[in-house]
Amino acid sequence: MQAIIISIGDELTLGQSVDTNSAWLSARLAELGVMTKTHLTVPDDQAEIIRAVRQAAELAELVVITGGLGPTRDDLTRQALAEVVSAPLVLDASALARIERFFRERGRVMTESNRQQALVPEGGLLLDNSQGTAPGLRLTVGRAQVFVFPGVPGEMKPMFEQSLAPMIGAQTGRAILTRKINTFGLGEAVVGETLGELMRRERNPLVGTTVAAGIVSVRIRSDFPTSAQAQAELDCAALAVKQKLGTAVFSEGDVSLAEVVGRLLNEQQRTVATAESCTAGVLAAMLTEAPGASAWFLGGWVVYANRLKTETLGVPAELITREGAVSEAVARCMAEEAGQRSKADYVLALTGIAGPEGGSPEKPVGTVWIALGKRAAGGTQVAAERFLLSGNRALVRERAAKTALNMLRLDLLKGS
Amino acid sequence: MQAIIISIGDELTLGQSVDTNSAWLSARLAELGVMTKTHLTVPDDQAEIIRAVRQAAELAELVVITGGLGPTRDDLTRQALAEVVSAPLVLDASALARIERFFRERGRVMTESNRQQALVPEGGLLLDNSQGTAPGLRLTVGRAQVFVFPGVPGEMKPMFEQSLAPMIGAQTGRAILTRKINTFGLGEAVVGETLGELMRRERNPLVGTTVAAGIVSVRIRSDFPTSAQAQAELDCAALAVKQKLGTAVFSEGDVSLAEVVGRLLNEQQRTVATAESCTAGVLAAMLTEAPGASAWFLGGWVVYANRLKTETLGVPAELITREGAVSEAVARCMAEEAGQRSKADYVLALTGIAGPEGGSPEKPVGTVWIALGKRAAGGTQVAAERFLLSGNRALVRERAAKTALNMLRLDLLKGS
Repeated sequence: MQAIIISIGDELTLGQSVDTNSAWLSARLAELGVMTKTHLTVPDDQAEIIRAVRQAAELAELVVITGGLGPTRDDLTRQALAEVVSAPLVLDASALARIERFFRERGRVMTESNRQQALVPEGGLLLDNSQGTAPGLRLTVGRAQVFVFPGVPGEMKPMFEQSLAPMIGAQTGRAILTRKINTFGLGEAVVGETLGELMRRERNPLVGTTVAAGIVSVRIRSDFPTSAQAQAELDCAALAVKQKLGTAVFSEGDVSLAEVVGRLLNEQQRTVATAESCTAGVLAAMLTEAPGASAWFLGGWVVYANRLKTETLGVPAELITREGAVSEAVARCMAEEAGQRSKADYVLALTGIAGPEGGSPEKPVGTVWIALGKRAAGGTQVAAERFLLSGNRALVRERAAKTALNMLRLDLLKGS
Repeated sequence: MQAIIISIGDELTLGQSVDTNSAWLSARLAELGVMTKTHLTVPDDQAEIIRAVRQAAELAELVVITGGLGPTRDDLTRQALAEVVSAPLVLDASALARIERFFRERGRVMTESNRQQALVPEGGLLLDNSQGTAPGLRLTVGRAQVFVFPGVPGEMKPMFEQSLAPMIGAQTGRAILTRKINTFGLGEAVVGETLGELMRRERNPLVGTTVAAGIVSVRIRSDFPTSAQAQAELDCAALAVKQKLGTAVFSEGDVSLAEVVGRLLNEQQRTVATAESCTAGVLAAMLTEAPGASAWFLGGWVVYANRLKTETLGVPAELITREGAVSEAVARCMAEEAGQRSKADYVLALTGIAGPEGGSPEKPVGTVWIALGKRAAGGTQVAAERFLLSGNRALVRERAAKTALNMLRLDLLKGS
């Protein structure tokens, strides 16, 4: 089975919003053995929607559509589909009752425009939406099965799992399995050269690389008639990739660096605290992205102004004046003070120049000092390193936080 | 002139990466008066790329392609384009020299695979890449002009501005102008009802709404033969929208809540500090996203563990025991203590339950107490409010931070 994904919305073709649904849907479909041929994005234009749905229904057996089911005048997907199947829109009384209940339960006023969300092209089926007011649609166009979900990711995802996923599981024969292995610290070309023959285009499983915000991921796609075979070949290729890349590999799939660090801290029953200047909370926020972080994350200091470095963290003002706020000495002192005050087993301290202003020939934008403090008998043992990170302000801050996490990860690996 | 945007990469159709380039390109093209008909995403498959480029070149005068120009074996765009125009790939000596210089200047080793990035289909033109190793391509396919850029956004964007933007400015006649007006605090349906007739689908300028992470944006698209007319009509519609929505409007375009708050603080020469529990740095990171934040952001405390609330911020342990960490009393105390210690003019303190664990019938997941402290004669004057925010852990944290920013914004508006 092959799928085409259609995203609908002026905000998409005008570039005012980024389409994240197509990526999520493709990933889930691939896991279920359905290959996505293409993503297609069209504006809130009835003729364009009709044309896209007709074309997609000719090219693929499964068409997944997101967007255009909202309560406002620019939501035209329902009307377009009615035209595609040449059927009138009829009111679904039970869907209307559900929408009314949704509003009642939340003490919100239902507007007249919400009523049109209970309309369905005759012959089609409305799909329950547990998270919002817009029901989805399911209908048949020619030989294709068409599913329509709201564009809001938090509503679309559970609806996919409830309606579409079970249908596919029952129908497909072929097994396409994918796996993503994430590395930190090596460039993409180095990863490519290290993997060498493993990346030949004729291979099955097929191995490729992608980069996102400092993380080079190796993706593997295994395509075989049975899932047992696909799984065995995928495991074998994954093992070969991991052996070649060693400790640069930090996780698989969507497991972030922060999650890996959290798990290691949890296993070793260690705690961590932060002291951030240039990243100003980015690292602490990353460390607490995953639920359960309270088991090992204590807290931290955001010392953006130099005065706060001194007054709240105890970094001597004369040290800052003498060495500069972005210096090894200040990074080390931040780590020591934060370690003493928080009594955490580990401390990560960062001070740098995120840009675009503030750089100098000796300390260009992207210069970041990172200190890793480790509680030891008689105080905090600190290792500090200087990095020159590339990218804009946001990227420098994100990379700095990830580089700090990676320093901690590598130290935790020694201990485990 | 109409455009079709093609994104190339297995990582996209497999759903391992989200395509942000198409949205950015569409927005920039719209600003330049070029309407994007569709976005099309295809895998790293030579036949699929060839088919997509041929089809796009028939349907639109401008085809913009991103991705598949990297140094590894799965980057096939160059080869596919050579086939589309039936021309051999030839080595561009000056491009090769630039790639070699790029590596030399950074003290990195150039791999053999980087050499193929200097190949160009005969008759095409290589486009300079100031940020990376992959040059772009420009060539003509039938009546269409085709531009190819690397998939890395930081490389693609400056190349677009240098090569494609000037070409369009010279060629188009029609003016399509867009504007996005951002609101906080009202639901999408309420915004829609408030705007009423302004949202009729037949109107030009056309008015629509979109939601992303708690922010409801009103987008306006004005399409007229001359840019003077398009601009006048756009301004008129924008004024009407803003009058109807009042102080719920916080910005236009891509200006974030944090930036607006930063500007207001700057104008009024006020400073802010933070004390965060559940958001653990998300608010501080948001406040420092924009350059120049050091003018008004001092720093903050991340007090995730209750012990740190007491030991580093001075929240009495017995208060936490009696009222609970997520309570009005603790939020107020955090704001007072942070105000005293930082001497900031404003303090934002947050304590809540981001989930998925930790909720109770009295304090369900999404419960967040936010305290806004304001320096006054004789101490800190604190206003606290309880919110029940919806969404998953990440959304609750993001919405909590934005809600705090909005409280501060509304207070700053009174002062300005």
